[in-house]
Amino acid sequence: MNIGFLGLGNMGGPMAQNLLKAGHAVLAFDLSKDALQAAHEAGAALAAKPQELAEAGLDIVFTMLPAAQHVRSVYLGEDGLLAHGNGDTLYVDCSTIDPHTAREVAGTAAEKGITLIDAPVSGGTKGAAEGTLTFMVGGPQNAFEQAKTVLKDMGKNIVHCGDTGNGQVAKVANNMLLAISMIGVAEAMNLGVNLGMDAETLASIINTSSGRCWSSEINNPYPGALEGVPASRGYTGGFGSALMLKDLGLALEAAQQVEAPVLLGGLAKQMYQQLCNQGHSKLDFSAIMKLYQQE
Amino acid sequence: MNIGFLGLGNMGGPMAQNLLKAGHAVLAFDLSKDALQAAHEAGAALAAKPQELAEAGLDIVFTMLPAAQHVRSVYLGEDGLLAHGNGDTLYVDCSTIDPHTAREVAGTAAEKGITLIDAPVSGGTKGAAEGTLTFMVGGPQNAFEQAKTVLKDMGKNIVHCGDTGNGQVAKVANNMLLAISMIGVAEAMNLGVNLGMDAETLASIINTSSGRCWSSEINNPYPGALEGVPASRGYTGGFGSALMLKDLGLALEAAQQVEAPVLLGGLAKQMYQQLCNQGHSKLDFSAIMKLYQQE
Amino acid sequence: MNIGFLGLGNMGGPMAQNLLKAGHAVLAFDLSKDALQAAHEAGAALAAKPQELAEAGLDIVFTMLPAAQHVRSVYLGEDGLLAHGNGDTLYVDCSTIDPHTAREVAGTAAEKGITLIDAPVSGGTKGAAEGTLTFMVGGPQNAFEQAKTVLKDMGKNIVHCGDTGNGQVAKVANNMLLAISMIGVAEAMNLGVNLGMDAETLASIINTSSGRCWSSEINNPYPGALEGVPASRGYTGGFGSALMLKDLGLALEAAQQVEAPVLLGGLAKQMYQQLCNQGHSKLDFSAIMKLYQQE
Amino acid sequence: MNIGFLGLGNMGGPMAQNLLKAGHAVLAFDLSKDALQAAHEAGAALAAKPQELAEAGLDIVFTMLPAAQHVRSVYLGEDGLLAHGNGDTLYVDCSTIDPHTAREVAGTAAEKGITLIDAPVSGGTKGAAEGTLTFMVGGPQNAFEQAKTVLKDMGKNIVHCGDTGNGQVAKVANNMLLAISMIGVAEAMNLGVNLGMDAETLASIINTSSGRCWSSEINNPYPGALEGVPASRGYTGGFGSALMLKDLGLALEAAQQVEAPVLLGGLAKQMYQQLCNQGHSKLDFSAIMKLYQQE
Repeated sequence: MNIGFLGLGNMGGPMAQNLLKAGHAVLAFDLSKDALQAAHEAGAALAAKPQELAEAGLDIVFTMLPAAQHVRSVYLGEDGLLAHGNGDTLYVDCSTIDPHTAREVAGTAAEKGITLIDAPVSGGTKGAAEGTLTFMVGGPQNAFEQAKTVLKDMGKNIVHCGDTGNGQVAKVANNMLLAISMIGVAEAMNLGVNLGMDAETLASIINTSSGRCWSSEINNPYPGALEGVPASRGYTGGFGSALMLKDLGLALEAAQQVEAPVLLGGLAKQMYQQLCNQGHSKLDFSAIMKLYQQE
Repeated sequence: MNIGFLGLGNMGGPMAQNLLKAGHAVLAFDLSKDALQAAHEAGAALAAKPQELAEAGLDIVFTMLPAAQHVRSVYLGEDGLLAHGNGDTLYVDCSTIDPHTAREVAGTAAEKGITLIDAPVSGGTKGAAEGTLTFMVGGPQNAFEQAKTVLKDMGKNIVHCGDTGNGQVAKVANNMLLAISMIGVAEAMNLGVNLGMDAETLASIINTSSGRCWSSEINNPYPGALEGVPASRGYTGGFGSALMLKDLGLALEAAQQVEAPVLLGGLAKQMYQQLCNQGHSKLDFSAIMKLYQQE
Repeated sequence: MNIGFLGLGNMGGPMAQNLLKAGHAVLAFDLSKDALQAAHEAGAALAAKPQELAEAGLDIVFTMLPAAQHVRSVYLGEDGLLAHGNGDTLYVDCSTIDPHTAREVAGTAAEKGITLIDAPVSGGTKGAAEGTLTFMVGGPQNAFEQAKTVLKDMGKNIVHCGDTGNGQVAKVANNMLLAISMIGVAEAMNLGVNLGMDAETLASIINTSSGRCWSSEINNPYPGALEGVPASRGYTGGFGSALMLKDLGLALEAAQQVEAPVLLGGLAKQMYQQLCNQGHSKLDFSAIMKLYQQE
Repeated sequence: MNIGFLGLGNMGGPMAQNLLKAGHAVLAFDLSKDALQAAHEAGAALAAKPQELAEAGLDIVFTMLPAAQHVRSVYLGEDGLLAHGNGDTLYVDCSTIDPHTAREVAGTAAEKGITLIDAPVSGGTKGAAEGTLTFMVGGPQNAFEQAKTVLKDMGKNIVHCGDTGNGQVAKVANNMLLAISMIGVAEAMNLGVNLGMDAETLASIINTSSGRCWSSEINNPYPGALEGVPASRGYTGGFGSALMLKDLGLALEAAQQVEAPVLLGGLAKQMYQQLCNQGHSKLDFSAIMKLYQQE
């Protein structure tokens, strides 16, 4: 298929490369010349400015941007995709932003007869490189089906979450719960070890009991509880604490808009702010363990 | 085997009956005449006072009591088990109490040459009735092996957690984490639904993502997210909020003793106090959802 | 002096009337015809649209608006004050908004040679009516001095908080602390009374001890602790819980922008969200006491 | 008057000396020989064991001990005060302990016809040395009056809080509120300064506004906001963080007993645990500011 890809960062770059590997023709754009050069070497054609992607008569255009302000600018700006595109192209925004903005921009697109769906990802840079991302997709059923034929070349789990914006909703709700359970595991493991239990034993008991969760089983934050996880290598790699802080910010913003109380979610966010302020923003989010360690 | 059973309440009653069904001879004691009568009808011999269990030359004596004060009294009192027993009988306390008391009482027992191990359970009254409890056992390896031959008649998951007291440690750590993740699921589900998602869809996405946990998969607190759970029947049945509040109290007491900070655990406890104060102490602990509902 | 007043709501209406009483000529605008009629009857001249205030060559124009979006629209819109005004008029925004927007709008004004200072108030509708408001002013010294000559006709405490935006900073910081200490008083009073103390006695002891604060001395939330406060009349009157929730939202938004952790502030916000969701948004913010009451 | 004093630590030592200065005859006891020697040099007679104080026919015996377990032991032990004393002597316990224990020990005393009242203090070692302590007294009116004639020689604020135990209630309620408002001030000051305000200006505005409290006015935790406070000298001196942690533990224990939810109080305790774990237990409790500082 003829595909456009805008935003070739840590995530977008490898995603575009997986599209090329799958045999798609890709027209790429990014502000970074290095990123463009890498895409070119992988076989992509290059656009000189965003609107070229809108004017090229492509089947699908993917966007992968850092924050809501960039999504607004790329889609809604005078030189943006909506001003220069039409309904023959399907737009798929893979950025993680707040549901409100996602729905607002998609609503503006709809007024121009253009379908824009949201498809934020989870799985990190490793999932992007290996093509094993999860896509949480919000938008009409037929647009979802169309996007899925291509999304499967970049991920292995393509989930339809319902109407426009619901991809973002699923992502912020899931990640807020993830932060809470990660902190919960940190507290429970630290408590148990301080009370005299071996970390590995405690983890294995929790993982067969009602306390089990992804954070206890797959990314246990207590050093020594699991092998091969960030906690066993100084919390390097993984999903950065600053990114978790960003996602918690999106969750709280969304919660405020719909007046949903989030007591643990709110506290979790403040604790990730503390962690980042202590200089650990680039460490995996399991590094929240550091707030519990005794000097 | 010849077994003593002290404490025939909601949990202990059915547990003793499962021992009888498995063919053991059981000498039972409880303060309640009704409970004794029920045990008698099920085939148990009855003791007139606790020390009879200590003096009967039994293989194992199980105790299942409401709180640390009762454990102290039953084991350490003048008329208690330790004063009248000897090292030929293995003592197994299935009560859920703080690890500190468990170790202190077991230490006193050891001074008299008596082995007392801790084996708190999870699985609730349903697990007790069906013989599917999980036992978290703390004590020496050989005592664990000996107890296991009988514990398997009351449960299906018998876990050795290490030395004396570690059964209690595993239980409080696990249940504190359980409370935190339950509240986290309540917040995430409520947030997502308020933002426009279908509860069932959101639950299924979380359950294949990094937010997944026992509380999202097995006992989701949002009405309509799962079938056949307390949330789908007005939060009746299950593990009572008052019991969760008690376990959080034990976790916090233990945390204070070893100076382990528990920020989310501490907040979780206060929220369960609020829930119980609003008259919901007997509802399943997934009823924490009620704190998030809009009037 | 010749004064413009835009925004004649619950606060702005009485403020404008106090300016008239003090002998100023007031040109007023509001979207509500009733509000305009009331101002007219009190002696104000009426403008048909906002830009008339900018074009009338007034000494000072005050704006008193509900939220940042209205401030942006009134000042930055095509028909707005900045597009039609000039540097001969001093603009004073009395709205409570986030410091970031306040500085941004003032910065745009400065580019056009116009001085806009922020002067949010505290003291509520009672203070507005009686002319006893506190104004927290952010802006250059000379503009502060000029504004003060008129602000004193609407309030009794006119404080210079430093540069542009600092009025808003002082307000959000103060009100976040106010919410925290109000909840703290609610918890301490409830604890003490449950432990057997008389509410009035406890309040009087706290008020001569290190726990004393405005919320314990002036607006104690425990019924019976003080006379003549909202708690003694079903929490009617006073500063509404919904307004406190709004201010906590502004504080958290500002905290996120400057990466300042606010653990208690964040929790306080979620609790006010719970209170409002329970149907108490119009009650005085001391009604947070309701979250602690036993059924 | 003839007075006994048991417990000559950092607080009790100077308190006993003030009694001597006021002309009372003091019979003193402590486990530390150094403490006894100092009391002797100041003019006290020395007892060789606690019961001597009970048998000496004194008017009043004061006790000042570290924790509930010591109070139990000194009063209830076989060699303790109640076993050897009688109703001719009034007992005044100045220790800070939980209200439950205070009432229990006083109840045992009453059964023997002995009056024991609780009179915990605030004011720290400085107040003890200078005789400016506040005493919060729980007990019958006539016992309060009798004690007051001597307490005034050690403090300047002698408050009757009601029946037995209420002195402790007032102390834990006040100190929990103090911890909450201290953290609140830390958050508000940090937020305001990060948003661009001068610390001294912000403090002065808060102190004339609704956010004002003892912690903002008398012991502001932000360096530079006030002169002569612990924050201006590296948080040395003052009321130690470990002592605040202990008092928060008493408050939470009491809250659990009467089922009073304490959401902010509970979080405050965990934060003081974090602070102490980071090695700051001896710093003034305003050092909670450290949890907010950026690296």
